Amino acid sequence: MPAFLDTNYFEALFTNPRLREQIGFIIEVEKLKTVLRGTPLLNGSRVENDAEHSWQISMMAMVLAEHSRGPIDLLRVIRMLLIHDLVEIDAGDTFAYDDEARATQASRERTAADRIFGLLPKHQGQEFRGLWDEFEAQETDDSKFALAMDRLQPFLHSFLTGGRNWIALSLTAADIRNRTAPIGSASPVLGELTETLITDSIERGIVLHQGGD
Amino acid sequence: MPAFLDTNYFEALFTNPRLREQIGFIIEVEKLKTVLRGTPLLNGSRVENDAEHSWQISMMAMVLAEHSRGPIDLLRVIRMLLIHDLVEIDAGDTFAYDDEARATQASRERTAADRIFGLLPKHQGQEFRGLWDEFEAQETDDSKFALAMDRLQPFLHSFLTGGRNWIALSLTAADIRNRTAPIGSASPVLGELTETLITDSIERGIVLHQGGD
Repeated sequence: MPAFLDTNYFEALFTNPRLREQIGFIIEVEKLKTVLRGTPLLNGSRVENDAEHSWQISMMAMVLAEHSRGPIDLLRVIRMLLIHDLVEIDAGDTFAYDDEARATQASRERTAADRIFGLLPKHQGQEFRGLWDEFEAQETDDSKFALAMDRLQPFLHSFLTGGRNWIALSLTAADIRNRTAPIGSASPVLGELTETLITDSIERGIVLHQGGD
Repeated sequence: MPAFLDTNYFEALFTNPRLREQIGFIIEVEKLKTVLRGTPLLNGSRVENDAEHSWQISMMAMVLAEHSRGPIDLLRVIRMLLIHDLVEIDAGDTFAYDDEARATQASRERTAADRIFGLLPKHQGQEFRGLWDEFEAQETDDSKFALAMDRLQPFLHSFLTGGRNWIALSLTAADIRNRTAPIGSASPVLGELTETLITDSIERGIVLHQGGD
């Protein structure tokens, strides 16, 4: 809650308990703007935060939906993308190549999902949680296309900023192919683009070839 | 375009011209993260940018859709909200209470829309432009609910951060009622909440009463 107004005071202004819970959720998840990621802005000035990332991949889904391998419901894809990172308000952003943090990521994020989606009115919270669970389970075409957007965006940013993240971590082409595999699974066209950019990065010596293929 | 990689070099990597235009658009509109607004974060640490704002109001539409006065197509509302501020990449954010800037806002933003949506493949660009024009025209239930989200979010932030923006500008209750009128037009429930918060702000001496009612 904001430091500027007492929570109890604010909540007492509501006559509609359902709306009070919904606005409470909106206020809480605004914190997503303060969760930083490893991905640089394209102008290189700073790293992005989860709110900016969530906007960008939702907008990318809107632009690139036609390239999905399977039929998708774009509203469901975008709803997943708008909320997929909310758990990081409690669990933090887990860097893709931090194996230690990734070992505990799933349990930390489930606990966060219980708390955060639990702020909403009961059935609405269950609906949002269902979308988050579906994204995590990666069994449906909607969730697969959503994950493809979530992986394509940082990959594009790394490529376009000269692979600084890749170089700093001494990543091999195999590491990057592994991380970006969901892109091609959800969209052959976008998978082909990804492979073209990885091959180009190898040729320019930006990622290490060994283990790559 | 990013400073790190030559535009011509990047574009030459694409074999699919349609995808090249789509990715070019995605790269260009990423600049939305650098367009600052007058609205503070709820923790007061800084002002937000247009990308964060666009995420937040899209997410708010997803939470609050049930409160619309008329039937809405949530996908169309969210698509409008994801792209409604892209014109500010060229035209800048026009502060709500800057009358001089607002006089030239419409023409500056139309020129920006021509350029930015023109980056997309032709028919897709026309579709996006149509959504933006619809939002601007404010004639449909979808566009009215979208505008309600766009007005409710900064209003809530101003209220929850102690009305600092309102105090700095010596706004009257009438100024704020005028700016937030689209909220009640699109949603009686959210309009009632807005009026409750304005009345509370008057009672606490945060906005000037005169001219207010």
